[in-house]
Amino acid sequence: MIRQRACTTLGLLALTSLLSGMSAADVRAQNSVQIDAPVGFAADHAARQAFCEARFTELPSGDAFREHLRIITSTPHPTGSAAQVEVGHYLGRVMKAAGMTVREHPYDVYLPQLTDDVEAHIVTPVAMQLNNREAALAEDRFSSHPDLLNGWNAFSGSGDVTGEVVYANYGTRADYRALDSMGISLEDKIVIARYGGNFRGFKVLFAEERGAAGVIMFNDAPEVEEDPYPDGPMLNGEIIQRGSVLTLNWTGDPLTPFVPALPLDGPVQVERLDPDEVGLHTIPVLPIGYNAASEILSRMGGEAGPEEWQGGLDLRYRLTGGPELTVRVRVNQPKALTRATNVVGTFEGSEFPDEWIILGAHYDPWGFGAVDPNGGTAMLLTLAEALGQLADEGCRPRRSIMIAHWDAEEYGVIGSSEWVEEYLEPLTDGAVAYINADGAVSGPNFGSSSSPSLKQPILDAIRDTPYPNEGRSIYEWWAERADDGVPVMGNLGGGSDHIAFYTHAGIPSAGLSSGGRSGIYHSNYDNFAWFERFGDPEWIYGPMLATADGLLALRLANADLLPYDVTRYAVDTRTHVNTLFEVAEFRRIEVNLDRLVASTTDLERAAAELDAARTARVAASSVSSAAAEAINAGFIGLEKAWLDERGLQDRPWSRSLYVSPDPFSGYASWMLPGLRYEIETDDPGDVPQWETRYVDAIDRLTARMDELTVLIREGM
Amino acid sequence: MIRQRACTTLGLLALTSLLSGMSAADVRAQNSVQIDAPVGFAADHAARQAFCEARFTELPSGDAFREHLRIITSTPHPTGSAAQVEVGHYLGRVMKAAGMTVREHPYDVYLPQLTDDVEAHIVTPVAMQLNNREAALAEDRFSSHPDLLNGWNAFSGSGDVTGEVVYANYGTRADYRALDSMGISLEDKIVIARYGGNFRGFKVLFAEERGAAGVIMFNDAPEVEEDPYPDGPMLNGEIIQRGSVLTLNWTGDPLTPFVPALPLDGPVQVERLDPDEVGLHTIPVLPIGYNAASEILSRMGGEAGPEEWQGGLDLRYRLTGGPELTVRVRVNQPKALTRATNVVGTFEGSEFPDEWIILGAHYDPWGFGAVDPNGGTAMLLTLAEALGQLADEGCRPRRSIMIAHWDAEEYGVIGSSEWVEEYLEPLTDGAVAYINADGAVSGPNFGSSSSPSLKQPILDAIRDTPYPNEGRSIYEWWAERADDGVPVMGNLGGGSDHIAFYTHAGIPSAGLSSGGRSGIYHSNYDNFAWFERFGDPEWIYGPMLATADGLLALRLANADLLPYDVTRYAVDTRTHVNTLFEVAEFRRIEVNLDRLVASTTDLERAAAELDAARTARVAASSVSSAAAEAINAGFIGLEKAWLDERGLQDRPWSRSLYVSPDPFSGYASWMLPGLRYEIETDDPGDVPQWETRYVDAIDRLTARMDELTVLIREGM
Repeated sequence: MIRQRACTTLGLLALTSLLSGMSAADVRAQNSVQIDAPVGFAADHAARQAFCEARFTELPSGDAFREHLRIITSTPHPTGSAAQVEVGHYLGRVMKAAGMTVREHPYDVYLPQLTDDVEAHIVTPVAMQLNNREAALAEDRFSSHPDLLNGWNAFSGSGDVTGEVVYANYGTRADYRALDSMGISLEDKIVIARYGGNFRGFKVLFAEERGAAGVIMFNDAPEVEEDPYPDGPMLNGEIIQRGSVLTLNWTGDPLTPFVPALPLDGPVQVERLDPDEVGLHTIPVLPIGYNAASEILSRMGGEAGPEEWQGGLDLRYRLTGGPELTVRVRVNQPKALTRATNVVGTFEGSEFPDEWIILGAHYDPWGFGAVDPNGGTAMLLTLAEALGQLADEGCRPRRSIMIAHWDAEEYGVIGSSEWVEEYLEPLTDGAVAYINADGAVSGPNFGSSSSPSLKQPILDAIRDTPYPNEGRSIYEWWAERADDGVPVMGNLGGGSDHIAFYTHAGIPSAGLSSGGRSGIYHSNYDNFAWFERFGDPEWIYGPMLATADGLLALRLANADLLPYDVTRYAVDTRTHVNTLFEVAEFRRIEVNLDRLVASTTDLERAAAELDAARTARVAASSVSSAAAEAINAGFIGLEKAWLDERGLQDRPWSRSLYVSPDPFSGYASWMLPGLRYEIETDDPGDVPQWETRYVDAIDRLTARMDELTVLIREGM
Repeated sequence: MIRQRACTTLGLLALTSLLSGMSAADVRAQNSVQIDAPVGFAADHAARQAFCEARFTELPSGDAFREHLRIITSTPHPTGSAAQVEVGHYLGRVMKAAGMTVREHPYDVYLPQLTDDVEAHIVTPVAMQLNNREAALAEDRFSSHPDLLNGWNAFSGSGDVTGEVVYANYGTRADYRALDSMGISLEDKIVIARYGGNFRGFKVLFAEERGAAGVIMFNDAPEVEEDPYPDGPMLNGEIIQRGSVLTLNWTGDPLTPFVPALPLDGPVQVERLDPDEVGLHTIPVLPIGYNAASEILSRMGGEAGPEEWQGGLDLRYRLTGGPELTVRVRVNQPKALTRATNVVGTFEGSEFPDEWIILGAHYDPWGFGAVDPNGGTAMLLTLAEALGQLADEGCRPRRSIMIAHWDAEEYGVIGSSEWVEEYLEPLTDGAVAYINADGAVSGPNFGSSSSPSLKQPILDAIRDTPYPNEGRSIYEWWAERADDGVPVMGNLGGGSDHIAFYTHAGIPSAGLSSGGRSGIYHSNYDNFAWFERFGDPEWIYGPMLATADGLLALRLANADLLPYDVTRYAVDTRTHVNTLFEVAEFRRIEVNLDRLVASTTDLERAAAELDAARTARVAASSVSSAAAEAINAGFIGLEKAWLDERGLQDRPWSRSLYVSPDPFSGYASWMLPGLRYEIETDDPGDVPQWETRYVDAIDRLTARMDELTVLIREGM
């Protein structure tokens, strides 16, 4: 890429010159290299940025990445274990040694206690205990660790139940409705459902609503078994997907929506809800592998299911087991207030310390967590060290760069949510972006999802990030694999630690990752032995992602005017309105959104003017600190135009009208979710009042852009 | 103890007062608590010291100790392994996070390459391979780690030899002479010797001198097997003691005596000896356990050995195997220049940065090394964090406190020796003390050995260090177990990283440790599983030792005048002269050491005057920095009076006339070794000339004390 080459060349020249005592400005004056300045940089800072970026890209180290991952994943360390406390200390020490100010943020949250006191049996026609632990393998020295647990689901109820079996396919809302329409009762039945199609908590919720006695979930076999572990990286019949089944209408601690679950031994006590009244699941639930599942499925005697319900095992998937087959599920899962601790490091900004670029990932796993989450954790530590080295060499960020390690994500995205609730005010005023890295490294396939205003900054950053061993940028590598040569940035949805930042606090958010083929999700085989063979054997994708994340963070931290792509708000909103029309058409509902479409047109105009004003301003002159602070407060405020204190339908904690997790599946993202809800629930009568709320939000966004344009132009 | 209580009370008062803005001096003025000031402190600094000590004793953390040990010992990490590089980085990060300045000190030294390509067989009358690896145990999750190695001895020769067997008891000089006198030839024989009685390298050296083809060494069985691992902490028949057999007449890198083995890729190249000419062993050597040893011993057909040669196995220990029994030993041990890296952290002294208190331990193990060495390593990291916290709270040391982690100790005490050679000049001018912590934590039994001038400071420090769960001090705990209620400080000898400091550079040195029952020395079972069951299950002895080491260091670092016990030089020298007479009597040799005895009497007088002058000086007034610096240079110079550039007999690198390792056994310490050597080698004719060298040294010491007394009195 031309820009990349220019930056690199300048960087090396600048480095040489710096050693001989010249300033970056001298270098720029002396060299005729044309700098294609990153968005938002005035000329004086663009030259310094080019120098710092060229040096930065040399710093993230594969050795460091490997070393951090090995140490962090040497023992199973789920939230609540002593080992996790140690890992937290390790993260703090590494960041402190890298030059960051480090703080631990403890919370006492309501969590399942670490136990695997679970069992499943076939009771009749044979007595057989079903395996619910991955085998110890000679090829995997970690697989025999004594601290590993059986398969279990966090926020299962406790109980010991025996009953006949009903197969519920993926256990989606549609699947359960199909069972209803076939007249198949779940009352006192053991539901068996395969993973996939939705968040696993909804499989349980819908079964519980129908009176089921218990739920067994399983990883379905692939149609054709390919490269099963340990010969390859993929699923085998023993692998069990652990996971939370928490389904509440807020994210975070079950007892403290809206407020942080501050420690019981701290100075401030928060009100906690009664755990019996928040609506936790009460029936026992557990997960098994497909070998164990086939013992149940092969003995089912009822009617065959629909063709789409047929899975990968070589047997007919039937709807009911019949009276001959009874299955027992026993789960003993005490819950209690439990310490969860986020560890947050900060490189304080030299000029705008209260403006924060936050990079984060959770650090709690189900077992060892080499991929999920600690590939991301090790990447962030590698990045912390690289940024520390860069700062030591004179490139200290103008805004604060924070690296956050969240606890208790696996049980319900809890650590990050409590932190956002605690720091909502400074985050609202000063958070520039949240960049997530959950399980971010497990292979060669780069990808990214983002809120609209960060999509272009990410694409710009990966244009200047080398793809290892390829002699080209990530962008070029990605573009080659895209349908029409243009990488498609996804829209950020549910399922990880950006939720509170993005949907509760209205902070532009994104996730970058480099994935690969894997069948060990949430299993005891997600460990260093798997990772060093299949995840990142050359230890190159971790440093690659650290470089991309770091370049993005450094531009957000050092730009004079924040480089949000404001035009994307209008473009993406139009796309989402079209999606609403498609959903409505699919559901055969008439909707009129003329006012929304019209407001989007005005937004488009305001965004274009704002974009032009910013470009003109940084091209014309340098920007004083005071001016930058005032203008950037305006940029930071834009995303908050989407916030509505009333929240979404039945979800007051979800304040963003722009995006939310799909309330009926959990993982997928819904865009313009207030309107989507009315359409999905076949309730077009409420569409006009929701359209009004959306038009108000877009008009707010337009007005803020116009004000900001005026402010920028005034200062010229 | 009274002093302890007074300090603690003052400490709490001071803490309270500090919070209310009062200075330590105010506190002292306001309170009538009588401070029994530690030796060498003027009143102003004594008050501050009491405050800092009271706070310090609260800081060393059992959780931190456990955590560091677990992380460091998660993988086998001998010198030369990739894991050891990672451990080095970890040590650096922890110390950096604690606020220390950290530097890695790399050396390229001549080392065996990491291989366990060794085997031993009975060839006739049966064909049987002898086991040379500890079994993987279900009770020990570490024992199956794939990076563990067979039993091997560093600096064995390479070769594949078969021959008849001779049993050499412990393989001491006396044992081999007994075989000589019985007319038993070792020519082309395989020598089998039990561990114990001397440094294992001498078992090989003496066998090689007699033409042996190879050596097998074994842990002998105890008379009565008690608590064998894994049921208890002690030896079992599979356990193999690895270890170096290097025997040269200097310590450190075999190719660079007197000079540091600076890295090949560094700016300065040092001359290296030809490895074929330094006198390394050439015959193959390996260690086995007693189960394997019994396979050989039980088949030996020769004459029974002397009664004292009978060991713990239930069979007759015979001198020769006879022609029916042949044994094969094969060792492939390539050697090459290999990177070894010390990691050294420094809290720079606020007032006397060039005066150093150095605490150290090696960090290279044979396998995991939970006891040897990393209990000490984890203790030092815990201490680093406590001292960092203390400094953050305002108690920064006046002199520099350094914490050093040495590499390649197990192969021949190499990392520390190279470092002392590299920094000999600043160490000579400024090193106040070296405190060693090799494998320092493995149980409840506190003990300490020291050079004379540090014995009393150590006893003082442990009077003020709580013994955990006992409500009394270490001193009291130790005194109860001593013969007449007085703890006996040992004399420091060979075998660990104090050697270069003490015997080459003349720096007062000591070792403190807390040991226990153990049979897993240098075996694959020296791991975290053993340690958490038998070493320090409550994680209390590591913090205890960190507290004792820390108090000692803080007093040496903060005293106005260094608190060396100068009177002990004379006391101990007298004791050692008496030992010489006893050895001479035992060997039936007449010696006259009248001049030595007389010089000791004058030393006694000078020491008493110096001690009194120091006491008077600090009692009279505060001591200016300039005065302290001049006087303490004199104190630091005292120990160097023992140095003689000519060195000891055949050991020019051993410059201290006061102490050396026993040249015929390696581990034990010889005091006044120049004279001892002449007596032990039955050569009384050379005693007078050696007595002259000793009288010269003692007279130098006396003269330096007298000069120092004058200097101290002048300033009053």
